[in-house]
Amino acid sequence: MTDASSAAAPVRDPRDLDPFTGVVAVLGGTGEQGRGLATRFAAAGLEVVIGSRDAVRAATIAKAIGHDARGASNADAATQAAVVIVAVPWDGHEALIAELAPVLAGKIVVDCVNPLGFDKQGAFALEVAQGSAAQQAQAIATDAIVVGAFHHVSAALLLDEAVAVIDTDIMVVGDDRAATDRVQALAALLPGARGIYAGRLRNAGQVEALTANLISANRRYKAHTGVRITDV
Amino acid sequence: MTDASSAAAPVRDPRDLDPFTGVVAVLGGTGEQGRGLATRFAAAGLEVVIGSRDAVRAATIAKAIGHDARGASNADAATQAAVVIVAVPWDGHEALIAELAPVLAGKIVVDCVNPLGFDKQGAFALEVAQGSAAQQAQAIATDAIVVGAFHHVSAALLLDEAVAVIDTDIMVVGDDRAATDRVQALAALLPGARGIYAGRLRNAGQVEALTANLISANRRYKAHTGVRITDV
Repeated sequence: MTDASSAAAPVRDPRDLDPFTGVVAVLGGTGEQGRGLATRFAAAGLEVVIGSRDAVRAATIAKAIGHDARGASNADAATQAAVVIVAVPWDGHEALIAELAPVLAGKIVVDCVNPLGFDKQGAFALEVAQGSAAQQAQAIATDAIVVGAFHHVSAALLLDEAVAVIDTDIMVVGDDRAATDRVQALAALLPGARGIYAGRLRNAGQVEALTANLISANRRYKAHTGVRITDV
Repeated sequence: MTDASSAAAPVRDPRDLDPFTGVVAVLGGTGEQGRGLATRFAAAGLEVVIGSRDAVRAATIAKAIGHDARGASNADAATQAAVVIVAVPWDGHEALIAELAPVLAGKIVVDCVNPLGFDKQGAFALEVAQGSAAQQAQAIATDAIVVGAFHHVSAALLLDEAVAVIDTDIMVVGDDRAATDRVQALAALLPGARGIYAGRLRNAGQVEALTANLISANRRYKAHTGVRITDV
């Protein structure tokens, strides 16, 4: 008889996965968050395509990033990619996902969009009919494999070349284990960061909304806050 | 002319506040979370009264905690206290706040209740008409000063005497600066923890709901996860 406990498969370390297979597209890659992620991923050696409504602008940003990053329209970028990071503003999210749904089928779609409003008292979470931006994406692009991640990482830190260590974990939510593992491996490419599994897609809304709390803390403490998950 | 920047009041360090003034009541103090907080606060030297629907049971728990902790009915505990921590199960939250609303007027009410559901796939956030448990409390007990805090701290760690350092920050949300400062000072009494301001009460819902993500991470990593806010 085999000892069941010793025969059990060990938990896969997401850092053991190879995130270097296939192109990573960053839609909305000309915005701050998208450009920050694209810059770090290109510098880490990934094949990155910046997507934008304006392919010429995407090419300009890609050239500035260097590391062989390329620019394309959002649709062309998504078509080329195995992993599609969605970093567009919330008010363009639904229309973009609807437009690209056929292209996104079968791909890992990493939604980092935070549905937030702002007023004199600061940031606040917007209500989303589907529960979250990530669930909205999954509801529209039903054949995509949607994962939520990279909501909290500061664009300012990503874009600051002097910042060698990004002192934050990346909460990764999703229903497909291989996809969340892959996205955790991507997160680990941000120097100093870890990708931490943080539940199913139905629990994406509060991860997105927590960005409002971090913005409040940023204001109070004059900081670029991040989140570390302890005991992991 | 005075230099405006040097004349500006320095940000008050909440650890400079004296949290030892007045009684702290822990309603639902016979539950795991309430008992854990009461134990740590009593050990830190606070005057703690455990509240419960069953005053006899509260007295038994208080005696086990030691450090001169006392037991009382929820109403009697709240009446004695300057700061009232609400740590009851979500399904008793609304009724308890409604019952005690007159007593809670003018007091700091620290809501740590997480409106969560559980099924075969784990924990998930419940929808709350007012947006969050904390906002529900404020909507019912309109003259209380409601603050949200202590949602994520592991009861298992609080109750384990061998755990000398609680490796987590406490996100504190609320609209009254003196009250959030006071609750941050309370949080700093948990050894190793810090109280971090994390926005207004309207941003309490996602802090409460994030507990579902931490429960998911606990299950995946076989851990008692906590949250640290970086760059603060």
